[in-house]
Amino acid sequence: MIFLSEQDILSAVTIQEMMDTMELAYLAYENQAYLMPIRTQVSNQESDSLLFMPCFSKDAFGSKIVTVFPNNSIKKMPTTQGLMILNDSQTGEVLSIMNGTSLTALRTGALGGVAIRYLGHPKAKSIGLIGTGMQGKYQLMAALAARDISDIYLYNRTQEKLFDFIEDLKQHIKKEIHIHPVENQSELISQSDIIITATTSSTPVLPDDKDLLRHKLFIGIGSYQPSMQEFPKAIYNLIDHLYIDTKDAIKESGDIINPISDGLIERDQIIPFSKRVAGKQIVTDEEAEHQTFAFKSVGMALFDVFAAEKIYKNAIGQKLGQIVLI
Amino acid sequence: MIFLSEQDILSAVTIQEMMDTMELAYLAYENQAYLMPIRTQVSNQESDSLLFMPCFSKDAFGSKIVTVFPNNSIKKMPTTQGLMILNDSQTGEVLSIMNGTSLTALRTGALGGVAIRYLGHPKAKSIGLIGTGMQGKYQLMAALAARDISDIYLYNRTQEKLFDFIEDLKQHIKKEIHIHPVENQSELISQSDIIITATTSSTPVLPDDKDLLRHKLFIGIGSYQPSMQEFPKAIYNLIDHLYIDTKDAIKESGDIINPISDGLIERDQIIPFSKRVAGKQIVTDEEAEHQTFAFKSVGMALFDVFAAEKIYKNAIGQKLGQIVLI
Repeated sequence: MIFLSEQDILSAVTIQEMMDTMELAYLAYENQAYLMPIRTQVSNQESDSLLFMPCFSKDAFGSKIVTVFPNNSIKKMPTTQGLMILNDSQTGEVLSIMNGTSLTALRTGALGGVAIRYLGHPKAKSIGLIGTGMQGKYQLMAALAARDISDIYLYNRTQEKLFDFIEDLKQHIKKEIHIHPVENQSELISQSDIIITATTSSTPVLPDDKDLLRHKLFIGIGSYQPSMQEFPKAIYNLIDHLYIDTKDAIKESGDIINPISDGLIERDQIIPFSKRVAGKQIVTDEEAEHQTFAFKSVGMALFDVFAAEKIYKNAIGQKLGQIVLI
Repeated sequence: MIFLSEQDILSAVTIQEMMDTMELAYLAYENQAYLMPIRTQVSNQESDSLLFMPCFSKDAFGSKIVTVFPNNSIKKMPTTQGLMILNDSQTGEVLSIMNGTSLTALRTGALGGVAIRYLGHPKAKSIGLIGTGMQGKYQLMAALAARDISDIYLYNRTQEKLFDFIEDLKQHIKKEIHIHPVENQSELISQSDIIITATTSSTPVLPDDKDLLRHKLFIGIGSYQPSMQEFPKAIYNLIDHLYIDTKDAIKESGDIINPISDGLIERDQIIPFSKRVAGKQIVTDEEAEHQTFAFKSVGMALFDVFAAEKIYKNAIGQKLGQIVLI
């Protein structure tokens, strides 16, 4: 059995490969070629939670176990920590245990990247990111792989976090790409072709201004609970469809629950992104110039299993990881 | 994070220590000092199953993940394989991942051993085991630690398995202890003070003969599903109470479901064993000579968490295990 650390995972796969893998996961979703029960959640009296997310796909099966300990932030520790277990689909044997936090960040980044592949302006040059945590970093990596980006605009409520983020980011991107920290969200939106929100905010992190938001692509990856919302009302007035990574998003995210209950969007306007992937519907220059697009991701275990299988296969090929005797 | 293999686990704790730990788990059960949701079970079209069994206790929390692949037996692989994950109860951080199959066998053995501590004749000299698989081996180890046993009687439907088992057993026990393979269950019962059944049989593995079964202790650890039953009807006519390790057993095991539906035992005769541990009610010579006792175990995640915590603490103290970077 092989144990794969954060470093092993990042060495094993490129973000491009992970984006290709997420496209395959979307096809499996569209063809219903999986078995994915509702996730189990256990919480103790301190509101610490343990989540179990299993999935059987055609060739692999696995489970992600995530702990969410809200008080960790006081201790300067990550509140969310994960472990991914990949099993042999023929015998159940554990093939690999890997860092679930890195896997999640990588596959979530890749989901954003795939959204850009299909919905982003083919000539997009600039990208804006609101929320400069670990998720945001992987979103940018994938965006840079999906389009030929020259400028990155960054906003974070906490200035200090922004500068640390930039220092780290510089080590991972080409020197030719310009990084611009901005002081407010409006400036960020006006400068960016594609805007990614990666916060757990309970109120919209974008201004409620139709003219400012028009003809751009918005990627929301932060809100994963009904109490969280990143997108403002104006977005729902601009878009024809809201693309979602899984139908579960309709029940899980405030970015969908609230606009539906406010009558801002109809249920039949909410479309699984897998349909676009299956139909190879890549946006044209013409469409991108005259339409506003939005993609909302909450994630699901099917993505984790596809990601884990790809990471495992590559790691074996590259002799990465620590062999542990069970 | 520390990875503990089968070998590490067996080096880390003695069966006596594990029995003491299971007594502490029983006290926590009696005091309801735990949070244990119903286990999650996922099965695919081939009837392969994945089980997730989490539990928060006062000082620790953890999850056991078990795969049950019935077709593995054809491939000479274990049908049931497990992984135990132990987390820091303050931060959620993964402290240790360990071989869940060994942990289960060890703690299940210890549960049988604790039953002998409380219900076995204080002067018991002989023990009979029906079903000579891995579980049976650990049951014997614990029985030898609980009483001063001189004779072991063994029965298995498949003779070949019996001889392999004896070869292995000889390496783990004192030379003074006599091992007797027997050809039928009646002979085994007549010779043994304590009888352990460790099979997954769907029909009773003991003869339905009151006179043969009288004034002995029966420990059933095999039947964990409604379709499985090891104890014959006569046992229920002989016992005042049926002791169970967890109230879940009432819904899970055919050894309880069937006699209740047949009117052989009343619900109020079925007693959680934790009550005996909490009351320190150790059987006397007098009681043991005039009463028949039965204990039925199906296991629960609370036992796993207590076992994992003990194994982890001992392993740290003894510098056992493989340190893996997450």
